[in-house]
Amino acid sequence: MNRAELISQIKAKQSFLCVGLDVDKEKIPTFLLDFEDPIFEFNKRIIDATHKYCVAYKPNIAFYESQGSKGWDTLEKTVNYIPENCFTIADAKRGDIGNTSKMYAKTFFETYNFDSITVAPYMGEDSVTPYFGFKDKWVILLAATSNVGGLDFQYRNIDQGKMLFEKVLETSLEWGNKDNLMYVVGATRADILKKVRAIVPDSFLLVPGVGAQGGSLKDVVLNGINKDCGLLVNASRSIIYAGNTEEFALDARDEALRMQQEMAAYLKEFQII
Amino acid sequence: MNRAELISQIKAKQSFLCVGLDVDKEKIPTFLLDFEDPIFEFNKRIIDATHKYCVAYKPNIAFYESQGSKGWDTLEKTVNYIPENCFTIADAKRGDIGNTSKMYAKTFFETYNFDSITVAPYMGEDSVTPYFGFKDKWVILLAATSNVGGLDFQYRNIDQGKMLFEKVLETSLEWGNKDNLMYVVGATRADILKKVRAIVPDSFLLVPGVGAQGGSLKDVVLNGINKDCGLLVNASRSIIYAGNTEEFALDARDEALRMQQEMAAYLKEFQII
Repeated sequence: MNRAELISQIKAKQSFLCVGLDVDKEKIPTFLLDFEDPIFEFNKRIIDATHKYCVAYKPNIAFYESQGSKGWDTLEKTVNYIPENCFTIADAKRGDIGNTSKMYAKTFFETYNFDSITVAPYMGEDSVTPYFGFKDKWVILLAATSNVGGLDFQYRNIDQGKMLFEKVLETSLEWGNKDNLMYVVGATRADILKKVRAIVPDSFLLVPGVGAQGGSLKDVVLNGINKDCGLLVNASRSIIYAGNTEEFALDARDEALRMQQEMAAYLKEFQII
Repeated sequence: MNRAELISQIKAKQSFLCVGLDVDKEKIPTFLLDFEDPIFEFNKRIIDATHKYCVAYKPNIAFYESQGSKGWDTLEKTVNYIPENCFTIADAKRGDIGNTSKMYAKTFFETYNFDSITVAPYMGEDSVTPYFGFKDKWVILLAATSNVGGLDFQYRNIDQGKMLFEKVLETSLEWGNKDNLMYVVGATRADILKKVRAIVPDSFLLVPGVGAQGGSLKDVVLNGINKDCGLLVNASRSIIYAGNTEEFALDARDEALRMQQEMAAYLKEFQII
């Protein structure tokens, strides 16, 4: 999916919600365990229930990988089940030397047909650029994450008073552009979002941390929105585990709708729709 | 495998060689393509031919992942085939928030029973510490890598004149110790190895970049060896693709033996054996 198509989906659905599919077998309703592939059954119902209100899905690859090769089959079925008009994100946080990155790109863009993959910047240019050889596919680069460990290195000063994540953003602009590169920016610190926007005003940001992790949608919008919206706000647990009964999918739908409604209001306020 | 067992293997085999199993279907001898699982057939023969001369094997996960769920079966068969007296490294370069890292740990330490996994430091403490909850299992943290992109961030000054990789090493000592934490340090820059040893004198270092990538074993030893050896030197392509005929495994064996002989001489020179 290219940038114009993504923006058009955001406008059509009046939503910039991404639903994170961090699906843990121990957390899904127990009645699903009778199915041959309980996680796929769960995902199918979550997707059916939420796809009208979100523009993207983000399976967290760790959760599938932990099920062995069966988990990868579940992942494949899940990606194939996601409607064409939704942007797909392989939350894999890969990062390795050139020939290995090329392998990862092949895996997620060709074998599994994801639109994008999250990538870690520590190994630099040749760990990122191999992903750019694929049409309408995206790198979503870790910039400023919202976990507590993010403080260890990302917000430290590097070179002339810049923080490491700022250096990552600046350097990445030598590799890619707003048509093939997005950034992961945590929702829990508004001041950081402002600094990010100063360097990449036009890029899309994938913002986790709203919902279960405590970030505020309002702060994210006030500091992160741009003229094309430029945001994909992810919620995982607060949506997919909104309920735990036979009606879990309806509960998830309600929560997605609630977030979509809030997002629609912001899109109007900022005259994007 | 714990530290004492690893050191004892190094002494017994007079080797600190790690064989990297970066196995690409397009590069293996064509006669293997007639087998049901060509990559496993290749690995089996490489392991049979080299296990006397190396102490560790390092499958590069990207290469297996790119084959879809079948590739994960190949990986599982491969790890199970590696003899008990060899240390196993999942070269996965994972790095994510706490609950996700826990999932990755479960995958590689329990589902696949690896001794260790390579981990990227960008997301900090909670992306690393979840791996420490497993007995005799190891994190191998990316510190100073030898790829060209390593220059983008790792060697930049951070805080009071330290380089980022030095900060990573120092900070990591608050999380783990020489019994559960090793570091990836590229072979191509001797000055960097010296700086690493100044901060982590006792830790094991996993050193890629000798062989096809051009690093010198002599420089690595002179700047990196410690009283327990403290090195695992990886060679991938130079060993596994040493030959491309029906005799490829014998060619790999010769190359592994050649490296082991060189290593044995250094172990004697530094009075480790």
